Parts: sequence; C-alpha cells; structure tokens
Amino acid sequence: MSSLPTVNRQIIYAKRPTGIPTLDCFRLELGTIPSITAGQVLVRNHYLSVDPYIRIRMEAKDSYAPVMKIGEKMVGRTIGQVVESASDNFAPGDWVVGRMSWEDVSAAPAPELQKIDPSFLPLSAFLGALGSTGLTAWVGLMEFGKPVAGQTVLVSTASGAVGSMVGQLAKLRGCRAVGIAGGQRKCDIVVKELGFDACVDYKSPTFQEDLARAVPEGVDVYFDNVGGSITDFVLTLLKLNARVALCGTVSQYNATEPYGIKNYREFFNKRVTLRGFVLSDHRDLWPAATAEIQAGYKAGKLKHLETVCDGLENAPQAFIDMLNGANVGKQIIRIV
Amino acid sequence: MSSLPTVNRQIIYAKRPTGIPTLDCFRLELGTIPSITAGQVLVRNHYLSVDPYIRIRMEAKDSYAPVMKIGEKMVGRTIGQVVESASDNFAPGDWVVGRMSWEDVSAAPAPELQKIDPSFLPLSAFLGALGSTGLTAWVGLMEFGKPVAGQTVLVSTASGAVGSMVGQLAKLRGCRAVGIAGGQRKCDIVVKELGFDACVDYKSPTFQEDLARAVPEGVDVYFDNVGGSITDFVLTLLKLNARVALCGTVSQYNATEPYGIKNYREFFNKRVTLRGFVLSDHRDLWPAATAEIQAGYKAGKLKHLETVCDGLENAPQAFIDMLNGANVGKQIIRIV
Repeated sequence: MSSLPTVNRQIIYAKRPTGIPTLDCFRLELGTIPSITAGQVLVRNHYLSVDPYIRIRMEAKDSYAPVMKIGEKMVGRTIGQVVESASDNFAPGDWVVGRMSWEDVSAAPAPELQKIDPSFLPLSAFLGALGSTGLTAWVGLMEFGKPVAGQTVLVSTASGAVGSMVGQLAKLRGCRAVGIAGGQRKCDIVVKELGFDACVDYKSPTFQEDLARAVPEGVDVYFDNVGGSITDFVLTLLKLNARVALCGTVSQYNATEPYGIKNYREFFNKRVTLRGFVLSDHRDLWPAATAEIQAGYKAGKLKHLETVCDGLENAPQAFIDMLNGANVGKQIIRIV
Repeated sequence: MSSLPTVNRQIIYAKRPTGIPTLDCFRLELGTIPSITAGQVLVRNHYLSVDPYIRIRMEAKDSYAPVMKIGEKMVGRTIGQVVESASDNFAPGDWVVGRMSWEDVSAAPAPELQKIDPSFLPLSAFLGALGSTGLTAWVGLMEFGKPVAGQTVLVSTASGAVGSMVGQLAKLRGCRAVGIAGGQRKCDIVVKELGFDACVDYKSPTFQEDLARAVPEGVDVYFDNVGGSITDFVLTLLKLNARVALCGTVSQYNATEPYGIKNYREFFNKRVTLRGFVLSDHRDLWPAATAEIQAGYKAGKLKHLETVCDGLENAPQAFIDMLNGANVGKQIIRIV
C-alpha cells in the first residue's frame, strides 16, 4: 500500500515557450497534501505520462483543446494507488489511471479515474499500449485508416508511443507496416523489436529515395503524427483512395513558422480521405479497441515500448527531451 | 436535322504550356469527315465544354487522369446531334452528350454517349447544370460535404460552373450558402442571380476580414475548387467536425511553384474530414443527383449560368480566358 509523502511536489507551468520549451518554463513548488471532498479520491501518483499534446496546451491560443494558464499545475495522465476515497466506486489500495497533474498526490474527481488491473505488468503500460496511447493508435488506424489485409500502412514517429502501436496493430490485421523514425537506432528497434516490415530514417540524406523504395506499391494508409515536410513528401506516395488518419503534427508544435504543404493537390489527384481526430471524441470505440489490444498484449503479439525517467523533478527535462525525439516508445516518469 | 460540313475542323494539342497556356499550344487542322464502324455513332457537334481539368491533362505527368499527348486532338465533352448510327441505341436526329473532341464531327463509340431530352432549354445546360458540372457539385456537396439545414456551406469559384451549382444546391437543402469569387461583378451575380446569402471578392485587399465576417459562426462545409492561399485561409475558419469536399485546385494548375498550405494542422485541431473526389468514381450516385437537379431546374429553383463563345476556332482563346477567370458560369463554345 502506498504511503503519503510529507510534502506534495508539484510542477507549475511558469512561462510560455517560444519553440522548444526550456527548463525555466516550469517551476517546482512544494505544496501540501490535499484533503478530499465528497466524490473525490486521493491518489498517490506512481507514474506520469508526458506527451506531445501537452506542448499544444502551452500555447497562447486554444486549438484542439483549451490552453493551460501560467501559474497552474501541469496537466497529465498518471497511474497511482488510491490512499483515501470519498467515492463508492474506489477503495484504498485500488490502482487507477486518469487525468491528473504533475504532482506526488492528487485529489481527483472519481469520474476522471479508471480502475486498472495490476496483474498486467509493467503497470505503466496503462499509460501506453494499454492506455490512451494504444486507444489512439487503434481508433486512428481502424476507424479512419480502414486497413485491409495486404495493404501498406505507413506511420510517422514509428518508434514513438502511438506510432509503435500503429504498426503493430497493422501487422495484427495482416498489413505491411512501414515506419518513419529519426536515426538508425530507432529504425532498428522498430523493425527488430516491434516487427515492422521496414522503417526509414528521416534524418538520412537519402530519406526520400529510401522511403519510396520501402513502399514500392505506394501507401494505402498513412497515420500522421508529424505534419511538415515528411508529410508533404508522403503525400506524393499515396495510392488511389488512400486514407490519412491525422493524429497530430508534432513537427510543428515547436515551429515558429509553420511549414507549407506543397502537395495539397495530391489529396485530389489520389481521391484521398483525410481525417483529423482526437481520442476523446470516440468513446464508443474504446471497448472494442481495449479488447483487441489487451488480447494482443496477453498473447505476446503486441509489445509495450517505453522510456522511463526517474523522479518527478526530472519531468520537465524528460518532456523537453521527448519533444526533441530522445525517447523510444512512451515517455514515462517514475514518481515513486 | 444537322447537316455535315465539308471539312472537319479539329483543334490539336500542339505544345506543352508553362503556366497559363498560350495560343501556340493549340493548332487548327482541317480533317476529313470520319466514317464509322460497328458500334460507333457519327455526331455533328453543336456545343463544346471547356473545363479547368483539361489544363491538368496538358501536363507532362499523369495526375488524376492520363495526360494528353502532343499532336492529339484536344479532348472535351460536347453536345451534338446524331447524323449516322451503327449502334442500335442511337438513331439519326437523337441529341447526345459525351466525351468527344474539339472538332466539328466526331465518330464516337456508343457507350461514350448519353441521349439528352431536347425539351430542356438551353440544350447546352447538359454540359453544365444538367450535366457533369451539376453532378460534380451534387456528389461533392451531398456525399462528402454532408450538409445539414442551417449549417454554413462555403464554396470557392462561386461564379464558376461547379461553384454556382454548389451554392444553389446548398440553398435547396436549407443551408446558408457563401461564395468566394473574383471581382465585385461576379459576387453580385452570385448573390442576386443565384441567391447565395453572401459572396466575398478574393481580389479585395480586405478579403480575409470580409470572409471572416461573412461566416460569423465558421464554416461547416467547404467545397474547394481552388486550393492555394484562399484554401489556406479558409482552413482557419472551419468549425469543429467540418467537411472539406476537394473538387480541384485550379489556383495551382498554372502555377510553376506550388503554394504551401501552412494551416494543415487545422485539419487536426478541428477534426476535419477532407475528401478528394472525381465524378467518374461515383456513378452509383448519378441517378439520385440527376433527379434532384432536374426537378430543381424544372421548378425554377436552380439556374444554369453560362458564358457562350461562338466558333470552334475560338475555343483555345476561350479556354485561356476561362483559366484567367473571365467566364461566369459554364464556359461553352457554340460550334454550329
């Protein structure tokens, strides 16, 4: 059973970044252990997920989600153990995942939390393959990518949290899975550990030729996490009636000048269907997605890839490193 | 009954254009009247349609359709009267529309032709509102735009052949129809003659403010005929779950350097569905589309807008003028 710390370390959003965030955009504060009110649950956080979408929420203007205000706690999904409960749905000792904050202890409204099964190990997989990352990959690929066995599925940030799941799910459905990642080390992991058919290094000077060679018949499904110049080139490789599932544009989150997509007309030439999506719009699909992912995980057909950083105080640096592409798989902060 | 000329004037594709085509890209040849073989029909052409998509087919590289080869006859849809038939499906005197060439007399395979009802006047409407132009507008709007009464439908090239139909069809379905066109004269026609709720001049220095004001609640459906900087700005006005029906990118057909779309991330932020489409992929929808358009036309609720140019020999100049935006509605060449 988790014990409570004496102070509640909290990471505060201190300054709006220009481009890649710097450490002074964050501040560590020592808060008190919150008390809970009716309907709330006190959670000792064990793992924190830091994700690219958080960078969007650090902007000055609302985009797909409301922005965070300077002086507020950084938001993020965590996994923790219930220490005290004022909700009938949770009891001390339960393991939960939910949207909380970058802090040691959270007082969370019960509806924000979901119980998780601690027999799955590592528990942190509930922030990745078994959590919203896996669901995001599934919803984008299955609902909007509509992959058919034998077709080619291409995913950018293939060694990232979502991308690593997309390719594995595509393989489960009998597709050819091709990834794009930064550097030969990541590409090797994607092919050798995750079982993609190929992975192409976008940092290589021969990237375009390499990618064209890796998809000799063109691309049926493109799962886009990056936008920018990579996506611009991929558009020229799409097949007739291709589908693009647009999950994010991480190459642009830190850009001070947005990249201009020159091959927009390929959407017309190839009769493409592009769909931007956000996981929270598609709760109706979560049960089917969860069932397939958990079954694949138990059967050893889906692997959970993660990079773990120790210490809540190191979360800002780990977040910055992730935006710079240092991680492989889900970037996790181990708090306890 | 149409009589045959003694020579068959034909416009030949003579030179590949760079940017906007020039007259020397075309050549008039005097051919002979063709004879027909089994299954063919001899058609005296009366009206020729010149369309933006022909510019795409003048490029060096196949795109959504095969390119034309230098030295071949220019392709195009015509309306004509059957003079001689070697097919059971057509008899002399029948009026037909189909994909033929820029010439006085065509020997066409019967399956390329459709009979038309000469009680509709003007007959040339079968190249526009009652023809592939109207079908294109209907398929893009209804199938991919999915307009709902009360929503805002925005269409670029609103005074053009397809655009003028899109807005009228949107009004038929109870939507707010807003157009974008070049110049105040065209905008006036769109609002006063076609009944759009508003039309904004993209050539005005206040275009962006004007457009934002014309769609105060944002855009639910964007029917895109242009691409380029207009589309880039429109993306910032899309509402959550907006649909983009991408019919063409005429602003780019003559561009030597493609425009880069900077607001690609709006597809994600607004969870947009974009769909590039080509009419010929959707034959299953033609009966429903034809029924609604013909009923609207007969009831006086849909107007056919056209610009007529006399003389086959003037087709190249009319085509060039159309690409420069000189026409209002469908650009038609009257041959006879």
